[in-house]
Amino acid sequence: MTIADRWLLPDGIDEVLPPEAWQVEHMRREILDLYASWGYELVIPPHLEFLESLSAGAGSDLDLMTFKFTDQLSGRTLGLRADTTPAVARIDAHTLRRDCPVRLCYAGTVFHTKPASLTASRTPIQVGAELYGHSGLESDLEVISLMLESMAITGITQPHMDLGHVDIFRSLTDAAGLDAEAESVLFNSLQRKAVDEVNVCVDKHVNDAAMADMLKALPRLSGDVSVLDIARNVLSAAPAAVAEAIDQLAELAKRITALYPATTLYFDLGELRGYHYHTGIIFAAYMPGEGQAVAKGGRYDGVGEAFGRSRPATGFSADLKVLLRLGALGISERKRAILAPPDADPVLIRQLRGQGERVINRLFDRPDAASRQGCDRELKEVDGSWQVVPVS
Amino acid sequence: MTIADRWLLPDGIDEVLPPEAWQVEHMRREILDLYASWGYELVIPPHLEFLESLSAGAGSDLDLMTFKFTDQLSGRTLGLRADTTPAVARIDAHTLRRDCPVRLCYAGTVFHTKPASLTASRTPIQVGAELYGHSGLESDLEVISLMLESMAITGITQPHMDLGHVDIFRSLTDAAGLDAEAESVLFNSLQRKAVDEVNVCVDKHVNDAAMADMLKALPRLSGDVSVLDIARNVLSAAPAAVAEAIDQLAELAKRITALYPATTLYFDLGELRGYHYHTGIIFAAYMPGEGQAVAKGGRYDGVGEAFGRSRPATGFSADLKVLLRLGALGISERKRAILAPPDADPVLIRQLRGQGERVINRLFDRPDAASRQGCDRELKEVDGSWQVVPVS
Repeated sequence: MTIADRWLLPDGIDEVLPPEAWQVEHMRREILDLYASWGYELVIPPHLEFLESLSAGAGSDLDLMTFKFTDQLSGRTLGLRADTTPAVARIDAHTLRRDCPVRLCYAGTVFHTKPASLTASRTPIQVGAELYGHSGLESDLEVISLMLESMAITGITQPHMDLGHVDIFRSLTDAAGLDAEAESVLFNSLQRKAVDEVNVCVDKHVNDAAMADMLKALPRLSGDVSVLDIARNVLSAAPAAVAEAIDQLAELAKRITALYPATTLYFDLGELRGYHYHTGIIFAAYMPGEGQAVAKGGRYDGVGEAFGRSRPATGFSADLKVLLRLGALGISERKRAILAPPDADPVLIRQLRGQGERVINRLFDRPDAASRQGCDRELKEVDGSWQVVPVS
Repeated sequence: MTIADRWLLPDGIDEVLPPEAWQVEHMRREILDLYASWGYELVIPPHLEFLESLSAGAGSDLDLMTFKFTDQLSGRTLGLRADTTPAVARIDAHTLRRDCPVRLCYAGTVFHTKPASLTASRTPIQVGAELYGHSGLESDLEVISLMLESMAITGITQPHMDLGHVDIFRSLTDAAGLDAEAESVLFNSLQRKAVDEVNVCVDKHVNDAAMADMLKALPRLSGDVSVLDIARNVLSAAPAAVAEAIDQLAELAKRITALYPATTLYFDLGELRGYHYHTGIIFAAYMPGEGQAVAKGGRYDGVGEAFGRSRPATGFSADLKVLLRLGALGISERKRAILAPPDADPVLIRQLRGQGERVINRLFDRPDAASRQGCDRELKEVDGSWQVVPVS
């Protein structure tokens, strides 16, 4: 990514220059065409909304990320979207109100008051797809497939993928009877994989020994698909929802591996990314060797409730600029251009442009005018007719 | 434009829903491809910048339109871009620093605290093209041509175009020796075509009778190309720059008419749109019968000065959403889709999608599942092989 002028631009705010900007545009088109071919309909949600709309249904995680200011017209507080999902959920629940599965996709900038990580942009160009109105494993598989197809199209063909399921932690803490405060402490410890703190918290709040052992085991329950069998064993005394969650993960793993054998799967039953709004299977895709997720998503059933209609939902998103940086998009060598003198035949110029050629008007007359403007050919009058000839 | 949920969205903030959103995307691609074929390079400037960068070089007109808030990271004031030009000028002057004409184009949302007119969106999707580093009439003609081509591509083939030249007013007020305050009053009166107020202001501040007559004549100097001859006569005692400006308009009119004979030209020598930053020929294109300009632009030489390098510049911009509303973009009838049952052949599905078909996984089993999701065909196993058949 060409990020120039850091001294002029705020930290974490970047611009994309030629020729990378055209690569972003090209990738955007490839990805939106892919989503269209799977039946996902494009929406263009607003960048600005009343703050209440932006945070509705998405939990409080987004609130700290949201730029806020006063609307001069209404006197109310507006926010810049920090994520696209709340607006898309509103469109599904309130605007479209269709009585069948609805597939929506989008591409556009989101805005973060603070970067999501030390090196992250504060203005990712978010692309994503969401599937509303279906709660079965088939829809989880569909959005995960589409995410992997998105990565493949950008040249990331052997991704690693993390899979988790927030019902496991949720069912265990419910069964252990943890109050909200204790659950929050445990959640924070677990998210940081701070095993000692997890143990201290569990010892303090959970009396039932079997339950305590299961909660303490969570940070260790990660690895390849064999960890699911270990988990079935370790968590055998847990509520039925835990076994169901593990079964779902196993079934999903089987189907993903069949469809995308080049994808390396990794399971983490203590993973709680987006716990405050996710409700089932969660996933993230990585480029091998890169710490930050390239794309991520999960199930967030009930997200439309704030807009009057609770609907099952699952989806994912990625940052176009990250995909461009990490991927290896096969863009054909950029076509060189043709320099046209002021008196050249306008009909021929129009024809050439219509055929996909770049034709640049010659506005300045230095000897190197052609090469300076990336032209390898020029229009010349030969025997009374205008022709494309190599730059002399 | 489908603008739903006004009760939920702030006034003047709109979203684009299916199927219009795809039409916007389609138009965006057509227009950016057109600009690329003329040698314009795509840039993706930031939506957010330090306030100083946003208003530099663009005059104070934009300041009132700009949403402002504090950057939590730097403690400085950020603004949302109300126009794309300042950032593009910065990229030309400071980042690219090329020593030849530079052609840049862009497509993206801009943000206005107040709508530019009663019915305007506060979040237009601005597309535009800018040409830096050339001060002759050829570059004015190039950007005007590109603007007319943009309109043609969206189905507006017989536009009206207003042409003006800010040097006329500027030279006259300079010669009349008006102070800044008097000039500002006169400017405001003229912009509102308030003839009486123009006369009062001129009578009060201008002693020279010939000069006063010329200034008073400005609001009347509008009409078809014949008004240029009238203006030559009426303004014959003006500084030489005025006659030069009229000559430029006449030459430009001749060339535009030769290239785009279906365009109706209208001249307004008292037109001062963007006077605070424009420096030469200004223009706006209209759809017949619509009061608001569809696209507009003009020359703004020296715009890069605030970024360290003063460069000649001319360009234009338009709002994609307005182009979609007013134009008649020829989008081929949207292709219907193919419903795929869960056990259908994944290789065939992938092939069909690769051929541009939309293939939708059958996630729900009501009898009308196909039609509800816009499918006219489905995959069926016939004699042991999967085939595309019409929905029964």
